[in-house]
Amino acid sequence: MPARGDHDARRRDVSAAVWRVLADRGFGGLTLRAVAAAMDASTGLLTHYFPSKKALVAYALDVADERTANRPLRDAPAPGLPALRAALLDVLPLTPDAVDMNRVWVGSWDGSLADPQLRDRQRVRYAKWRDRLRPHVEAAVRLGELPGTDPDGLVATAAAFTHGLVVHALFDPDAYPPNRQIELLDAFLTSLSH
Amino acid sequence: MPARGDHDARRRDVSAAVWRVLADRGFGGLTLRAVAAAMDASTGLLTHYFPSKKALVAYALDVADERTANRPLRDAPAPGLPALRAALLDVLPLTPDAVDMNRVWVGSWDGSLADPQLRDRQRVRYAKWRDRLRPHVEAAVRLGELPGTDPDGLVATAAAFTHGLVVHALFDPDAYPPNRQIELLDAFLTSLSH
Repeated sequence: MPARGDHDARRRDVSAAVWRVLADRGFGGLTLRAVAAAMDASTGLLTHYFPSKKALVAYALDVADERTANRPLRDAPAPGLPALRAALLDVLPLTPDAVDMNRVWVGSWDGSLADPQLRDRQRVRYAKWRDRLRPHVEAAVRLGELPGTDPDGLVATAAAFTHGLVVHALFDPDAYPPNRQIELLDAFLTSLSH
Repeated sequence: MPARGDHDARRRDVSAAVWRVLADRGFGGLTLRAVAAAMDASTGLLTHYFPSKKALVAYALDVADERTANRPLRDAPAPGLPALRAALLDVLPLTPDAVDMNRVWVGSWDGSLADPQLRDRQRVRYAKWRDRLRPHVEAAVRLGELPGTDPDGLVATAAAFTHGLVVHALFDPDAYPPNRQIELLDAFLTSLSH
């Protein structure tokens, strides 16, 4: 029986390999063989961890959740619009790590839409994300930075704009370099504030 | 040798089956076996059409392109903002057919991001879509309906907002019924016009 430390180290190796495969080849390229190759291990070892493709995909989504939860975030700026801006910048693919992160999530959508449980898991993820954006919008409304007619609509609009920009930037990094993404976000936030 | 009419009829059957599989299970569920089952044919018959998984995926993207090009569009309204609005409404998942269409495209992103050729094909598709939106934005600028500082930025912003709303509506149709999608689009366009 391996010591607890070995177990944790192995888990970290498996997670890193799964993440590498997802970032390079997406969920369509996520196979036991690819993960094994990425960690220089045998496929046999991995079947011990993942008895089925479904188990591997579920684990991959856990890894993505974990990496998303633990990624570095911007320091909290002033409440209201600046905090909303920071929260949206934290999502955009402005760095290589954030590109990988977004590429993995966008890649997860095909499988999530095909499976009622995974679809619901994703639905809840995005509803929770909007819940985290809402206080920033509400503060901006209180501060007179945003109109107060439909705060939920502003949250939904900001979330939609940001995820759409993610997709377009992933496909066309030359047309959407980081400074252009930021410029578009700032112009978008300015337009909301009128 | 089958007559030309037989060949065309068979091609239509295959396309319809591929579409059904994509809409129900996405690209992750697109297999010869699933397509064969959807058209009540043998897998053997289909290997004749699709010697590889890559060939099947390429065909599926052709079917998606064809269906997108041939879908019914709104009548051209007044130029400027109303025409931009109509073009964006034509994309949103407001009907069951449009839900299928969007589900297929969103599902295609994982595989497209993993393959340089498919990625470029998708990049060009979205650049062309923005090219089709641009005249509407430019007309709106001329008419004084939109500010003229960065028309390309407005096009990119409208495209991003719309695709992001597509994704959120696919995952959460209860939170984004058609009337809410339209309401969000109208508020978004109003905010751009200030």
